[in-house]
Amino acid sequence: MQKKSISIIGAGLVGSLLSIYLKKRGYQVSVFERRPDMREKGYVGGRSINLALSNRGIRALNEVGLAEELKKVAIPMHGRTMHSREGKLTYQPYGVNGQFINSISRSDLNIVLMNEAERLGVEFFFEHRCLSVDFVNTELTFQRSTKNSQTSNNQLEIIHLKSEIVIGSDGAFSAIRQAMQVSDRFDYSQEYIKHGYKELHIPASDTGEFKLDKNSLHIWPRESFMMIALPNPDGSFTCTLFFPFEGELSFASLDTQTKVKTFFEETFPDVTALMPEYLIDFYKNPAASLVTTKCFPWVKNNTLVMGDAAHAIVPFYGQGMNAGFEDGRILNELLDQYQDDWTKVLTAFQNTRKPDADAIAQLALDNFIEMRDLVADEKFLLRKKIEAKIHSLFPDKWIPLYTMVTFQDDMRYSEAYTIGQRQKQIMDRVMGDPDIDKNWEKLDLKVLVDKL
Amino acid sequence: MQKKSISIIGAGLVGSLLSIYLKKRGYQVSVFERRPDMREKGYVGGRSINLALSNRGIRALNEVGLAEELKKVAIPMHGRTMHSREGKLTYQPYGVNGQFINSISRSDLNIVLMNEAERLGVEFFFEHRCLSVDFVNTELTFQRSTKNSQTSNNQLEIIHLKSEIVIGSDGAFSAIRQAMQVSDRFDYSQEYIKHGYKELHIPASDTGEFKLDKNSLHIWPRESFMMIALPNPDGSFTCTLFFPFEGELSFASLDTQTKVKTFFEETFPDVTALMPEYLIDFYKNPAASLVTTKCFPWVKNNTLVMGDAAHAIVPFYGQGMNAGFEDGRILNELLDQYQDDWTKVLTAFQNTRKPDADAIAQLALDNFIEMRDLVADEKFLLRKKIEAKIHSLFPDKWIPLYTMVTFQDDMRYSEAYTIGQRQKQIMDRVMGDPDIDKNWEKLDLKVLVDKL
Repeated sequence: MQKKSISIIGAGLVGSLLSIYLKKRGYQVSVFERRPDMREKGYVGGRSINLALSNRGIRALNEVGLAEELKKVAIPMHGRTMHSREGKLTYQPYGVNGQFINSISRSDLNIVLMNEAERLGVEFFFEHRCLSVDFVNTELTFQRSTKNSQTSNNQLEIIHLKSEIVIGSDGAFSAIRQAMQVSDRFDYSQEYIKHGYKELHIPASDTGEFKLDKNSLHIWPRESFMMIALPNPDGSFTCTLFFPFEGELSFASLDTQTKVKTFFEETFPDVTALMPEYLIDFYKNPAASLVTTKCFPWVKNNTLVMGDAAHAIVPFYGQGMNAGFEDGRILNELLDQYQDDWTKVLTAFQNTRKPDADAIAQLALDNFIEMRDLVADEKFLLRKKIEAKIHSLFPDKWIPLYTMVTFQDDMRYSEAYTIGQRQKQIMDRVMGDPDIDKNWEKLDLKVLVDKL
Repeated sequence: MQKKSISIIGAGLVGSLLSIYLKKRGYQVSVFERRPDMREKGYVGGRSINLALSNRGIRALNEVGLAEELKKVAIPMHGRTMHSREGKLTYQPYGVNGQFINSISRSDLNIVLMNEAERLGVEFFFEHRCLSVDFVNTELTFQRSTKNSQTSNNQLEIIHLKSEIVIGSDGAFSAIRQAMQVSDRFDYSQEYIKHGYKELHIPASDTGEFKLDKNSLHIWPRESFMMIALPNPDGSFTCTLFFPFEGELSFASLDTQTKVKTFFEETFPDVTALMPEYLIDFYKNPAASLVTTKCFPWVKNNTLVMGDAAHAIVPFYGQGMNAGFEDGRILNELLDQYQDDWTKVLTAFQNTRKPDADAIAQLALDNFIEMRDLVADEKFLLRKKIEAKIHSLFPDKWIPLYTMVTFQDDMRYSEAYTIGQRQKQIMDRVMGDPDIDKNWEKLDLKVLVDKL
């Protein structure tokens, strides 16, 4: 039997991985990308430089045989290192069992995925901008920009293409989802947070060494905002400042070089010294916005959206890419389960994944508060300590939320969310004791576990 | 001083009224409408035939001198008449002081507004579809469809137009808002309810008489769904069936003529006999969807959205048009207050009206449950009776929510919502008494009022 032709829109991380999954199942797979080929023209920015790859993502990469290759370029981060205003460092391991997450370059990872897809026979079409989708006939219309060989002017070509299945993995501003949005009875929301982000750079030392602990995710929590840093293979770190767009202390208010300089020197004294170019970076790099998008349905006839196109989230749980990769794994699993009956698979996919996407969207928003406000808070650290103690005594019964989300790749996000809510209620009551700092060692932890 | 040029997109109810307000202030006002002129080509449907005009709307019409003229074609509805499955009628007046709402034809009202606007010198441009907005230069691009006089084929013309102010009052699927939506940091949501609506018709009797009480809004509450009917000047009623799209009993499940017939005869026996054409209407008329849209900001430089373009709501409070007219009144008030300083006015408008739009959106969703599930419920009727008693004793202190929303045009929707929430909490506690039906006359109502 001739397998279906599938068009994937978007050659980013999620689309490229998905093309491998589907090619391996024997489909005819084409990937259409609006941007030029980053392998030839360089990476076009606008998105974060490095990402935290964790178990859910690794599991999917493993299934297509790429996990080992990618581990070579990834840098393990075993915990969080918090930097106080005074330069004091506090370290929190991510798990008691030596679990870690990985800093990985977005473009390196994307290139590995595209190369592997092409090796397997996936066809990539760059500079193809999707203009519209005819959901009834599963027909796409693209605009392709080509150079006229005589005049060297760009000319626009319009291309129509029918497929049997279309998958939009074209990011938070998905053209496929925008086409769905103007169809009847399509629920959609996009909500921005008040903070934007700006990337800064800590170069390697003159001898090529990391200037901060290499195997940590570094956080400068400052209550209403924060900065983080992830290591890069060349010894540098990429810092990301998450900061309000407007208000008393904001991107808008730092409107002179003096103000920027004073702000950095007072707020991040230990790291400012390590960033010789931060003033230039601050002016050169845009303040990018952070959006959560939700929609339903994800399926219109034979067209599906997934990854950020279906559920863009804020980056504070480091799960955006991991969730997108998990989408690919789950879709592949459902194709196994329903023997490639796409009608069943598409329905099952959206019904299964929607609650998980909603859960990780909320978790990501909640974690911003934890990272910026709480990781520097005495009471919060005690809370984490008590939870760690419970976990060490009852390792299968009380698993910290971060561990469930980040490391338990067999647990659905929605399940982790629900358990996390119950844990929170129990811990809120425990922490309600004003003398908890004195009393906590006397707590009957078994009773707490039994309440779960 | 030459007053600014203002382009209004959408010649519907809100845009037409607004054009009058602004023309009266001395602006150069042009209105651009996607559809043909309904005065020449007839009304293009897809929206409800008649509407409930109440105090907020009337106040705005009054300010532009049209309330008296429109009262002549409006039919007062003094209360709700509920029709039980057995054909039993229950009547609830809308207010103790003889307040009423008005059934009015959407197209009649729209035509009166357009005629008055043109009389004042507003220019209308029909069959102009807005394709894009350049918010920086306040420049609109339209597509105009014209007939070639030689070939009689339609040809498309592209028109660019600069204005000083652009106002999008182009409805729930606003082109102006869609242009805003793809700009950065624009929050937006569209959410459909599970019910759609279909319009049916009760003709006048052979002698031109109303077959049901003319001065009521008729409701057939059936718990998970309902039908309503509003009177028309020709002696007919327009019925609207609000019904689930899918499920056991739904538009989807009524898939044969026999099923439709059985459903109507069993569910609405008293009125089915009055609708000779209901089977044909049921097949001919589409099941339309019901959406709530929210967005923020409403302003991008010199461009504003208002009415449904900014805040489309479900119809269950009869406030969609009234809220849109109130938008016009408030904008006009702010122009007075800030002496036509549009920068200040636009900011003040969105900040003032956004909480009110959110409040009426929620009230409209809540009222569907009240209308379809509760108005036939004994305990609900007792609750209303107790509230009416409190109101009669303390008329200035405890005003029923419906009265505040519908008749108190000097109270903001957001204020009515907040007070309504407090009343609900108090009444929930009162109704929590299982013997409330016996005990309610002994209640100390003063204590309840003091809790507000």
